[in-house]
Amino acid sequence: MQSIRKNAVIRNTAILLIHCPDKQGILAAVTEFLNENHGNIIHLDQHVDHEEVIFYMRVEWELEKFTIPREKIADYFQTLIAQKFAIQFSLHFSDKRPRMAVFVSTMSHCLFDILARYTAGDWETDIPLIISNHETLRPVAKSFGVDFQLIEKNSANKAEQELKEIEILKQYNIDFVVLARYMQVLSDKFVANYPNRIINIHHSFLPAFAGAKPYHAAHERGVKIIGATSHYVTTDLDAGPIITQDVVRISHMDNVDSLIRKGRDLEKIVLSEAIYKHLQRKVLVYNNRTVVFN
Amino acid sequence: MQSIRKNAVIRNTAILLIHCPDKQGILAAVTEFLNENHGNIIHLDQHVDHEEVIFYMRVEWELEKFTIPREKIADYFQTLIAQKFAIQFSLHFSDKRPRMAVFVSTMSHCLFDILARYTAGDWETDIPLIISNHETLRPVAKSFGVDFQLIEKNSANKAEQELKEIEILKQYNIDFVVLARYMQVLSDKFVANYPNRIINIHHSFLPAFAGAKPYHAAHERGVKIIGATSHYVTTDLDAGPIITQDVVRISHMDNVDSLIRKGRDLEKIVLSEAIYKHLQRKVLVYNNRTVVFN
Amino acid sequence: MQSIRKNAVIRNTAILLIHCPDKQGILAAVTEFLNENHGNIIHLDQHVDHEEVIFYMRVEWELEKFTIPREKIADYFQTLIAQKFAIQFSLHFSDKRPRMAVFVSTMSHCLFDILARYTAGDWETDIPLIISNHETLRPVAKSFGVDFQLIEKNSANKAEQELKEIEILKQYNIDFVVLARYMQVLSDKFVANYPNRIINIHHSFLPAFAGAKPYHAAHERGVKIIGATSHYVTTDLDAGPIITQDVVRISHMDNVDSLIRKGRDLEKIVLSEAIYKHLQRKVLVYNNRTVVFN
Amino acid sequence: MQSIRKNAVIRNTAILLIHCPDKQGILAAVTEFLNENHGNIIHLDQHVDHEEVIFYMRVEWELEKFTIPREKIADYFQTLIAQKFAIQFSLHFSDKRPRMAVFVSTMSHCLFDILARYTAGDWETDIPLIISNHETLRPVAKSFGVDFQLIEKNSANKAEQELKEIEILKQYNIDFVVLARYMQVLSDKFVANYPNRIINIHHSFLPAFAGAKPYHAAHERGVKIIGATSHYVTTDLDAGPIITQDVVRISHMDNVDSLIRKGRDLEKIVLSEAIYKHLQRKVLVYNNRTVVFN
Repeated sequence: MQSIRKNAVIRNTAILLIHCPDKQGILAAVTEFLNENHGNIIHLDQHVDHEEVIFYMRVEWELEKFTIPREKIADYFQTLIAQKFAIQFSLHFSDKRPRMAVFVSTMSHCLFDILARYTAGDWETDIPLIISNHETLRPVAKSFGVDFQLIEKNSANKAEQELKEIEILKQYNIDFVVLARYMQVLSDKFVANYPNRIINIHHSFLPAFAGAKPYHAAHERGVKIIGATSHYVTTDLDAGPIITQDVVRISHMDNVDSLIRKGRDLEKIVLSEAIYKHLQRKVLVYNNRTVVFN
Repeated sequence: MQSIRKNAVIRNTAILLIHCPDKQGILAAVTEFLNENHGNIIHLDQHVDHEEVIFYMRVEWELEKFTIPREKIADYFQTLIAQKFAIQFSLHFSDKRPRMAVFVSTMSHCLFDILARYTAGDWETDIPLIISNHETLRPVAKSFGVDFQLIEKNSANKAEQELKEIEILKQYNIDFVVLARYMQVLSDKFVANYPNRIINIHHSFLPAFAGAKPYHAAHERGVKIIGATSHYVTTDLDAGPIITQDVVRISHMDNVDSLIRKGRDLEKIVLSEAIYKHLQRKVLVYNNRTVVFN
Repeated sequence: MQSIRKNAVIRNTAILLIHCPDKQGILAAVTEFLNENHGNIIHLDQHVDHEEVIFYMRVEWELEKFTIPREKIADYFQTLIAQKFAIQFSLHFSDKRPRMAVFVSTMSHCLFDILARYTAGDWETDIPLIISNHETLRPVAKSFGVDFQLIEKNSANKAEQELKEIEILKQYNIDFVVLARYMQVLSDKFVANYPNRIINIHHSFLPAFAGAKPYHAAHERGVKIIGATSHYVTTDLDAGPIITQDVVRISHMDNVDSLIRKGRDLEKIVLSEAIYKHLQRKVLVYNNRTVVFN
Repeated sequence: MQSIRKNAVIRNTAILLIHCPDKQGILAAVTEFLNENHGNIIHLDQHVDHEEVIFYMRVEWELEKFTIPREKIADYFQTLIAQKFAIQFSLHFSDKRPRMAVFVSTMSHCLFDILARYTAGDWETDIPLIISNHETLRPVAKSFGVDFQLIEKNSANKAEQELKEIEILKQYNIDFVVLARYMQVLSDKFVANYPNRIINIHHSFLPAFAGAKPYHAAHERGVKIIGATSHYVTTDLDAGPIITQDVVRISHMDNVDSLIRKGRDLEKIVLSEAIYKHLQRKVLVYNNRTVVFN
């Protein structure tokens, strides 16, 4: 289907994600810096956490008339602004499309949802690679023109197979990984390679029902609402920073099968929304929580 | 405000709540029994749990032309139908208004919501009594014309004070108890007196954040959704059968104070909905879960 | 992708959808009829509209030990039960998979969602045919192994092209049609061929913003919630019986583009839910409204 | 109940609400102005509507160390900043509690909700006055210690009675009016006295079901979701700028009575949320739409 794949429209903008201890004057200093150098701000969102006394900001501006060359922006910003306010920042350019790899097992609903959006040009990303521990979804990858690599894992070969995966991810220049109902726990070592760059979907409203079989547990407990949670993967299982969550109402008429059916819709929408926010560079992680800008 | 208190319209109906092992013919037998004796069915809702193989039913019929006298219905139903199918049932009459006591501490939002509905005649109940461990809300009780009893508790006198409470509840002929943000844990002994007749509101989407300070815990965990849960109280803290739940979306812009503010609206609506369902005899408890009929 | 297409598990059951003027004894008569003939009821849902005094029912039972042969059930039910109560009914068999055609224009999100579910075996249906007024989505059809027919329409040739479409639908033995963001209005004549068998998705919470460009209208009006509505198509534009609706919260930060982006997720989920309910024979139309059983 | 009424904690802050044609440098200019004069910004929220090319902003800062006296802030801001950017602004002080009047007819649910929050000290407002065209709710006003004025209206005396109302509102120094299910349409003349200062609750998700009896209309149309909308009153009936909306799912099992019952909960929560946002000076009206800051 790559014949009909559309690319999202590329804007010529830069994005700064910032956090630092809150102090008077940060906002004025940053906007001054951009204005003076003819950077037209098209989005600015900032937030102050008054409990932790942290200032968060996302600002996006047009590069067209910006007088600082793009390769020098980070350096100038660091010297002129960041060090003054102890700012930690990351700088992104909209025309740099992040490269994403999808890990799957046998369930197709999240993968289809991702590939459909990719094909429709909804996302500013490239998806060159799907990795799986099963052959099942290879035809899907093929149809959508994405490479598919089978990496089978068992308890004996896990460490070795993960090394192979990391190798492949490097070959494909992958920026971030999406676990689209991938039924394997990644080792701490693997996770350490992609800090805040592995997005998982867990099929419950975390922290309720972490771990295996959350729909069974939800049915057993008799809850009236089920949910799904996308989060960055950390070494702590199902405990990483939450990006998005959604829920749906259920009743005594639901059994485990209908929870699984209803949950699939939540899972794919929640995961895709998290990917979208990540691609927009609208997610800032601090203290195992996320700031998700609008 | 009792001068303007309205009573809900009283219907002359009987309600059967039934559960039993599922077998062919139960539904036909029950509806036949009512039809033969000229009981016009106005609501019938039934549900089969195919995993547990349990049949649940709520049926409400008009008594006007029903040929069995109301005081003999339970006996006839037991003899003619229930024993044949191993049915466990409870029989209710719409014109018998259950009597409710409200336990509060210092927060007023749930209490106001309950008393406002009571005054407007939204519920088929009487609320003769409010019990509290603080004086704070006595003026509210007075305004709405409800008796208020102060029963102060500390770790030393708890057992003794609970005996006093049970005594008072009996004096007032209380059928069921509502804990409207009552910040005390009731003893197992107290709970045993009102099986499935104490309704609590917990300020989280259980099973997440059971126990104390759920809004603080939710903020700390960085969830994107908060909730409230009403449930029958059992001897297991925050683990009783869930009646209703609701949630609201939050973001990084919320702090603990705003979670508490938003949560109040959830709490009062969820608790009042649970009370309404209980009063309608639409809640059936089985196996620590509820069937909540429509 | 048809190589990996799964079929939903087929149950050997019959389903009756019933409506009639409400009278005492209908429920007992129908369940008696099934019980006597050894039809084990696995789902029963009934509803009485007390304003219109109409009785609605969906009952599903196992055919395995049912003593009336499947080809005689309709006749027996008509003679023994239906005529007595002026019942109108439709009889369905779970092992008969309805055949569905999808009409599309150029937007792919609903089509992908439908084909993904079809491939995963989530639905008891066959989808042999996609019809479009544009070539755009032919590669999608091909990838999923579904025939694709281009029927271009303009104001001059519309009547003629619709005849061609009806012809093709007959060739493919199509039972019902899904308009998956098909940007053409069907003529009354076309619609008359498929009463309550054409499902449309409209991108607003009807009756608000019927007609063209609802997201623009929603933005213009400044609403804080947008929605999507799936309904059966009637000769009255966007006014047919509503099957499912859903909404999402928006804010002043949204522009028309972001409404369109958020709306896509609603549209595909709402449309697919309507298709699912239709396939389960859980939708009963009466008086331009639907009863959608659980 | 005024004996237990709490006052919300008063902060010593100023709030600017701003809108103007979007241009480079506005944000920097405003924040510079505050910083230079030692105004510690505690909340800043801004939004650019790129279609209309309008810049919106709400900024709140501490007055404690602010070097411009509060009575001169408007003048200085106008001269130094506003005229340069063609800014239209309103300036508010947190310690000035707006005075609110509530108009009611006979339904109590919104009024109780408002008075409960007022009593609990949830809102920074004073409510000295309730006006009604019926005696019904006088005892409620009395209980909560709020003056109650009966102004009966009919088609003959409406103009005259409205003059009386305006007179009373002036006597009580009322800043804004809340129509809490007040079943009378206000004249254009009345509305002109309180531009963007009359908040109404309409019991539908506008623009669907504007006008009378929306629940009946919703039931008739067979929608699967009902809603409530709070908006500023303009001379165009039910067409003013929307502040908040919310919805709840319904089904074929609902009749008009149950819609009314479920709708009451929506109405009171939606109306109270709109009042809260208004009191926080978080609502900015432009072009018949609202910007509602977080």
